[in-house]
Amino acid sequence: MARIVQKFGGTSVADIERIKNAALRAKSEHDAGNEVVVVVSAMSGVTNQLVAYVDQMGGLFDAREYDVVVASGEQSNAGLMALALQALGIQARSWLGWQIAIETDDVHGKARITGIETAELEKRLADGEIAVVPGFQGISPANRVTTLGRGGSDLTAVALAGALKADRCDIYTDVDGIYTTDPRIVSKAQKLDKITYEEMLEMASLGSKVLQTRSVELAMNHKVRVQVRSSFEDSPGTIVVSEDEIVEQQVVSGISQSTDEAKITLLKVADQPGVAAAIFGPLADAAVNVDMIVQNISEDGNTTDLTFTVGMADLEKAVAVLEKNQAEIGVGEIVADSDVVKISVVGVGMRSHAGVAQKMFMTLAEKGINIKVISTSEIKVSVLVAEEYGELAIRALHTAYGLDAD
Amino acid sequence: MARIVQKFGGTSVADIERIKNAALRAKSEHDAGNEVVVVVSAMSGVTNQLVAYVDQMGGLFDAREYDVVVASGEQSNAGLMALALQALGIQARSWLGWQIAIETDDVHGKARITGIETAELEKRLADGEIAVVPGFQGISPANRVTTLGRGGSDLTAVALAGALKADRCDIYTDVDGIYTTDPRIVSKAQKLDKITYEEMLEMASLGSKVLQTRSVELAMNHKVRVQVRSSFEDSPGTIVVSEDEIVEQQVVSGISQSTDEAKITLLKVADQPGVAAAIFGPLADAAVNVDMIVQNISEDGNTTDLTFTVGMADLEKAVAVLEKNQAEIGVGEIVADSDVVKISVVGVGMRSHAGVAQKMFMTLAEKGINIKVISTSEIKVSVLVAEEYGELAIRALHTAYGLDAD
Repeated sequence: MARIVQKFGGTSVADIERIKNAALRAKSEHDAGNEVVVVVSAMSGVTNQLVAYVDQMGGLFDAREYDVVVASGEQSNAGLMALALQALGIQARSWLGWQIAIETDDVHGKARITGIETAELEKRLADGEIAVVPGFQGISPANRVTTLGRGGSDLTAVALAGALKADRCDIYTDVDGIYTTDPRIVSKAQKLDKITYEEMLEMASLGSKVLQTRSVELAMNHKVRVQVRSSFEDSPGTIVVSEDEIVEQQVVSGISQSTDEAKITLLKVADQPGVAAAIFGPLADAAVNVDMIVQNISEDGNTTDLTFTVGMADLEKAVAVLEKNQAEIGVGEIVADSDVVKISVVGVGMRSHAGVAQKMFMTLAEKGINIKVISTSEIKVSVLVAEEYGELAIRALHTAYGLDAD
Repeated sequence: MARIVQKFGGTSVADIERIKNAALRAKSEHDAGNEVVVVVSAMSGVTNQLVAYVDQMGGLFDAREYDVVVASGEQSNAGLMALALQALGIQARSWLGWQIAIETDDVHGKARITGIETAELEKRLADGEIAVVPGFQGISPANRVTTLGRGGSDLTAVALAGALKADRCDIYTDVDGIYTTDPRIVSKAQKLDKITYEEMLEMASLGSKVLQTRSVELAMNHKVRVQVRSSFEDSPGTIVVSEDEIVEQQVVSGISQSTDEAKITLLKVADQPGVAAAIFGPLADAAVNVDMIVQNISEDGNTTDLTFTVGMADLEKAVAVLEKNQAEIGVGEIVADSDVVKISVVGVGMRSHAGVAQKMFMTLAEKGINIKVISTSEIKVSVLVAEEYGELAIRALHTAYGLDAD
């Protein structure tokens, strides 16, 4: 007997037939003698509709009321899922965020879970009842409805799995697992059986849409075994686990790309102490997230060139902030370039293997692809290249690191 | 300064523009220095959609989960209304049923309000904050979401007005008040400025759709002054009040009709003690509501004829029950007739005026309309006539009782 948390995303519970289908998956785990908790998203499209309603109210909105509005989509689906399970002859009930309770802080719209009361849930699970929990919602210290932000239903599922010491947290979605790279770009991409938390974290922050960074971090902190799998196919998915559970670690596990990048180059920056702080301070104040940063000595020797990347959505704001401070900081010229893509190779194995970065640079050089910026961490190497070379780079690297399927 | 509860029905909050429009009505009471509580329904159509989802789950459903599903429509509208008020510069917050709390019994799907905690609400109202409350929902002793059944948002509004000792409870809807009769039938129908609880009760149970019987009863018991008025026009509506508030009482205040009636006649019923119980017992057991009953001696003197009415929806069931017991009870023949309409004249003034019924019978006789069944109460006289004569009867009676507009 195992204890399993199943989470169904919006496309997996998009209508009544799909909710019934998801209920069958819960029934099959239940029939096998397992204790089952089901976490549901809203029907796909519903949350966006509710958010649009809030936007139409105009002005800066009260996030406490935003939460009351958007949490309703998950609530109705939780009731429907409980009914679908009951129709299959299974004892089931819904547990709203405030009923469990899933306690959070009061950062409405992006609340953090601070505690989950599990005693009553565990008693019911032991009695063979399935607990159905609306994802994305909790309750604040002031007794108000909170929501957990983007990817919030995954967070609910992982947090419940952690609090209940579940054996597994299955995230049912519209893809069947984590791949070595995007299969739409590389037809020989392979589904990974397992991946480490650390790798999944890097891939999440590097543009993989499957799991949000916060959910992976939470899973890692509570050692929750997360399985990403498809609601529409029966094959097993990819399990995200600790490094020590993976016997034979590949040096590189996957290659990801992020097109949501823009490059800003500052030319002829006065080469003196404090200039970097003068540049990045105002950007931080404007809530612009700066990613890769490189600095070169420029030709004349007295000034330097500085290049960094920001998210596409922040480009305009970043340039405006820089232009406002341009004279004061002493920047000769500001050059923005949004036709870039960040390619990253990720793998915990590179900690113990030299030459991973070198192989990347060689492979790209052989294809005549110019590297604009490089950044590295313990388990990844990222390069920024012109957008038009992105797919070529991914295919070449996928082959070079031996990831192609036979 | 007054304390006012405003309730907006589904058509009054059917989309964002209408919610904003309703918010303006709350603002205008608030600007006048009043304390305001706003009760909102779900957007029109939303509750029906949610009920349809539940039905599609199949089987006998768990009413506790039904309530979780259908309560969500009012929840999101409460958040949106709070946001709309805030956008107008007014301090406002939503209060879900479990937050107030609106305590109910555990008859899910048709719960009865047992108590409302008002201390915190009253404090906020005194601070100038508008309280926005989703209609239709409460919380059971077991901490589950309950709903109050058909007309539930009106009940929420009236109950809140009672608990808060509000000066008025305004029910905003898509009609502008209570009329002497249906204006679609009689163009000279007049809007009533005031009507008594007792009359409103009779009219509600006689087919008027504007207020549900339960809401009127609750208002009467707590002496809540209820105003029915239009969201889409600025004219004052009709106020439902105690009899003593109406100085010059009309003998007849209104004429209503119910087409949802069917007549059953039992011919040649054995004329002996206990026969009525033998007939109506099984009908009561089958949950068939019997309304008007008349009994005559039939021609042969040894048997009797019995006629009564049931709701159209119960006709088939009622006949089946009677046929099953026909021999045992001793009924010669069962005749059903659904082409009938019940016409009622209602007015508290008839308590102190003789001749009201006589005028009704005379008027109908003059038009050649045959009366099939008569029933009376202290403040109403109802007759059953052939459906084809219904509109003619209403017009004639409206004129006869002096209700026509000039």
